[in-house]
Amino acid sequence: MKKMMVLFALFAVAAIGARAEDEAGQFVGGDYKSGIPWKTPAVVTPGDKPCDPPSDAIVLFDGTNMDAWEGGNWNVADGVMTVEPSSGSIRTKQKFGSVQLHVEFATPPVNKDENGNPVDFGQARGNSGIFLMNHYEVQVLDSFGNETYPDGQCGSIYKQVPPQVNVCKAPGQWQSYDIIFTRPILRIEGDEVVEVIRPAYITVFQNGVLVVNHWAIQGETYFHRTPNYIPIEDKEPIQLQDHHNRMQFRNIWVREIPDSNVIPAQDKIQHYE
Amino acid sequence: MKKMMVLFALFAVAAIGARAEDEAGQFVGGDYKSGIPWKTPAVVTPGDKPCDPPSDAIVLFDGTNMDAWEGGNWNVADGVMTVEPSSGSIRTKQKFGSVQLHVEFATPPVNKDENGNPVDFGQARGNSGIFLMNHYEVQVLDSFGNETYPDGQCGSIYKQVPPQVNVCKAPGQWQSYDIIFTRPILRIEGDEVVEVIRPAYITVFQNGVLVVNHWAIQGETYFHRTPNYIPIEDKEPIQLQDHHNRMQFRNIWVREIPDSNVIPAQDKIQHYE
Amino acid sequence: MKKMMVLFALFAVAAIGARAEDEAGQFVGGDYKSGIPWKTPAVVTPGDKPCDPPSDAIVLFDGTNMDAWEGGNWNVADGVMTVEPSSGSIRTKQKFGSVQLHVEFATPPVNKDENGNPVDFGQARGNSGIFLMNHYEVQVLDSFGNETYPDGQCGSIYKQVPPQVNVCKAPGQWQSYDIIFTRPILRIEGDEVVEVIRPAYITVFQNGVLVVNHWAIQGETYFHRTPNYIPIEDKEPIQLQDHHNRMQFRNIWVREIPDSNVIPAQDKIQHYE
Amino acid sequence: MKKMMVLFALFAVAAIGARAEDEAGQFVGGDYKSGIPWKTPAVVTPGDKPCDPPSDAIVLFDGTNMDAWEGGNWNVADGVMTVEPSSGSIRTKQKFGSVQLHVEFATPPVNKDENGNPVDFGQARGNSGIFLMNHYEVQVLDSFGNETYPDGQCGSIYKQVPPQVNVCKAPGQWQSYDIIFTRPILRIEGDEVVEVIRPAYITVFQNGVLVVNHWAIQGETYFHRTPNYIPIEDKEPIQLQDHHNRMQFRNIWVREIPDSNVIPAQDKIQHYE
Repeated sequence: MKKMMVLFALFAVAAIGARAEDEAGQFVGGDYKSGIPWKTPAVVTPGDKPCDPPSDAIVLFDGTNMDAWEGGNWNVADGVMTVEPSSGSIRTKQKFGSVQLHVEFATPPVNKDENGNPVDFGQARGNSGIFLMNHYEVQVLDSFGNETYPDGQCGSIYKQVPPQVNVCKAPGQWQSYDIIFTRPILRIEGDEVVEVIRPAYITVFQNGVLVVNHWAIQGETYFHRTPNYIPIEDKEPIQLQDHHNRMQFRNIWVREIPDSNVIPAQDKIQHYE
Repeated sequence: MKKMMVLFALFAVAAIGARAEDEAGQFVGGDYKSGIPWKTPAVVTPGDKPCDPPSDAIVLFDGTNMDAWEGGNWNVADGVMTVEPSSGSIRTKQKFGSVQLHVEFATPPVNKDENGNPVDFGQARGNSGIFLMNHYEVQVLDSFGNETYPDGQCGSIYKQVPPQVNVCKAPGQWQSYDIIFTRPILRIEGDEVVEVIRPAYITVFQNGVLVVNHWAIQGETYFHRTPNYIPIEDKEPIQLQDHHNRMQFRNIWVREIPDSNVIPAQDKIQHYE
Repeated sequence: MKKMMVLFALFAVAAIGARAEDEAGQFVGGDYKSGIPWKTPAVVTPGDKPCDPPSDAIVLFDGTNMDAWEGGNWNVADGVMTVEPSSGSIRTKQKFGSVQLHVEFATPPVNKDENGNPVDFGQARGNSGIFLMNHYEVQVLDSFGNETYPDGQCGSIYKQVPPQVNVCKAPGQWQSYDIIFTRPILRIEGDEVVEVIRPAYITVFQNGVLVVNHWAIQGETYFHRTPNYIPIEDKEPIQLQDHHNRMQFRNIWVREIPDSNVIPAQDKIQHYE
Repeated sequence: MKKMMVLFALFAVAAIGARAEDEAGQFVGGDYKSGIPWKTPAVVTPGDKPCDPPSDAIVLFDGTNMDAWEGGNWNVADGVMTVEPSSGSIRTKQKFGSVQLHVEFATPPVNKDENGNPVDFGQARGNSGIFLMNHYEVQVLDSFGNETYPDGQCGSIYKQVPPQVNVCKAPGQWQSYDIIFTRPILRIEGDEVVEVIRPAYITVFQNGVLVVNHWAIQGETYFHRTPNYIPIEDKEPIQLQDHHNRMQFRNIWVREIPDSNVIPAQDKIQHYE
């Protein structure tokens, strides 16, 4: 306490002395502190094993039922959810903005003709998709020895950017996506996006390997045209696509995350006068 | 429907026509168009001479009166507005977010002692400031042959970044600032900033020379501490600082601009199904 | 001097006073300094009048000759340089990376038929272009009452983004571009761009009005296809386009600027142990 | 040639096949392609189990020896590497720039006094660090019920930004870091950084939970002063810190990744004339 008083006195003199900082700055020995009044981060309990949901996750599919979803009439058996072709895509009942998302999937067996040759190629083989905010697709495809346009293969942001590498497993083997998605910041007037203040960003790991690193999403991932942003809510469902192939899914969970880490959240300002 | 069927058939043939896109992609001759349904930009009439306000500008000071301002009791004479020391800073009555801002200023004569030597140095000589959104200061200082810490000299974002070059004119000569400022996007809960979704950005020309290029503002430009963001409205006044020196100002105008040009505004979506 | 000695003594005591900053941070009253050892910015003398070149500018055309240029056989008369149609585009002999560029131009009279109606429309009327690094075009066009696709009109980054507003003057009137361009950072192996580490960025004022704000250039501004980056040197010529119209140019100057202002240059590190 | 003629015919019919697309450029019905000549991504075989190294990983520690490292005299036993206090930090012999890095660690038991109360607090408990490029520290600390300044706790970028959440496990339990790091792009002249063209970026998962999302590293993570960038090579060792605590490490592997995903690598340009 007394030490502090002395210190204040010293600095008071220093301030009068003027231009102290030109010669010595604030680095008067010892431990630097940023001076930013950070909040204490909340405690989260991680899962027991890798890929298990942490304590702040919302579990979207734990193998037992599809209560978190609506839409297509898909099948649940043996802890696995399977696309029922042409029954429709499914969407989460809960809506989400920026998220960390874990999804596991397995592509269906390759259809073969009587000679044992594959019948389906490219986009026709093991196709599905994960639509963040119902609009921005991370492609799900059987890209194990199956060529297509690179920005349409598994791990791509559909028709925007290919995965850095092709890390697909064979049909029937379980694969994982770990996705960081931060939502776009749009200015919407009526039914128009009049400004894209900040695009959405996405980072994707497939089977533990980085395939997309902080990609600035260019807008809706259309099949038939250049991407652009159209009006959405601040939160939207996560969609899994029915693309007429019997894709399997399991162990799906999501965490809500901040919209940004550029300059992070801070406590209420502390005044130092 | 039938039309669509025909169309699909045609494309099927095209696809069989063997990797058409490998040979020609969508660039089947001639002129590429982005396919983005841009709006037609609004027409603006530029000023007659350089530095004159364009037709969409809001004139904040045209030399006749201070009707656009409130706060300190400054003086207007001969088309010029002069700081009345200790009368207080002034703020625009109208509030602004992202803007292009033009300001002209002249620093006051240097105070001299009986031997003709300057009396005031550093921050004490010809000091004022332009606060975008009332919080983020572009320093105004007599930095013509007057040394101070670089991130506090004229053209600096105060205590964040120095100007790229020192392009100051002598006291009494008219100087100009042309500023592009895009507002921060903050998430505010109660009286706290819980997230800085996107920082503010600023670009500054002094006397026609680039001095700050798209600086990501780190927050409030404090005198006494590290910058951070605190709650503000989406629009705030522009402030001119009374720092006890008789700074002169003239020809002040502002244009409201989009918050971003990263991915720009687009027309209502056109559907191509 | 003596004052300084005292000051040092005081700080020494403060340091001995021990871990002051642990208890109170570095904000022990008074003036905060960032602690970043900034360089003192170089002094630049601004031009006398707005649009005059500052002292560190390289003048590319002062009205007398085309010595700074090579390529097409254009005409110089009355302080003005005029495109000689089909003689070819011109390029600066000197090469540039990141620059601030000032260019003035006037579009030619509109061709009319015997009834006084315009003959040329859209891209055919008063077309030229300014190619930064010989590859990235700021469109020059007579867009005064002359419609075309927005991302191809005057002030656009050609086929990438329209100007925020249309601030064109009538044919024959002098207009200005003030451009901030920071070069792309590419990783090139052989004759391939294997990575775009950072795109080029561009900001454009037309006639003093902001029309493009820090646009991330998507690559070569092609006529016939989607943009992408192809190999270039770190510095390349600035090109003015011969698009078969008698565009006029005058008062062209350029300043070399840093490649970035994200986190700016700093002095050699100072050690504070 | 003939094929192309047929193709043209088909497209012509498609266009006649009616709809607005023929005015809107290349969207003449059907499948849009970006036109970007992407490379086919390289094939990588993922690890068998989560956290196993994929086929393109460089294994830095597989439990058997420290051949990949130099520096401090640490211990290897039972598949685990343990800090030998005061023997010094260790660095990889191989140098790396941008990487995906997997590291597992366990903090040591808490030292207790005779009454069973902890002896060490804050930075003194279970401290180590992972220095990307030998300069940028992801803090390793026992932050399980152990308070310290938030930007110095486990998962922080040391003295720059706290983790989004505190997801630490108890001492002795195995934890993981999965890190995406893209190197800074610096312009270095002599022994000075004269420009930070692009900062380094870092994303961190701790125990599978996102804790840092694409943070722009502000420079060297000093103990005693504000961060800034100092000269480094394009590749530097990865360092594990000896901070005098018996931290354990296992299963360390790294993958070299592109410096950016903003606008990704593309094939040699294809010409479409």
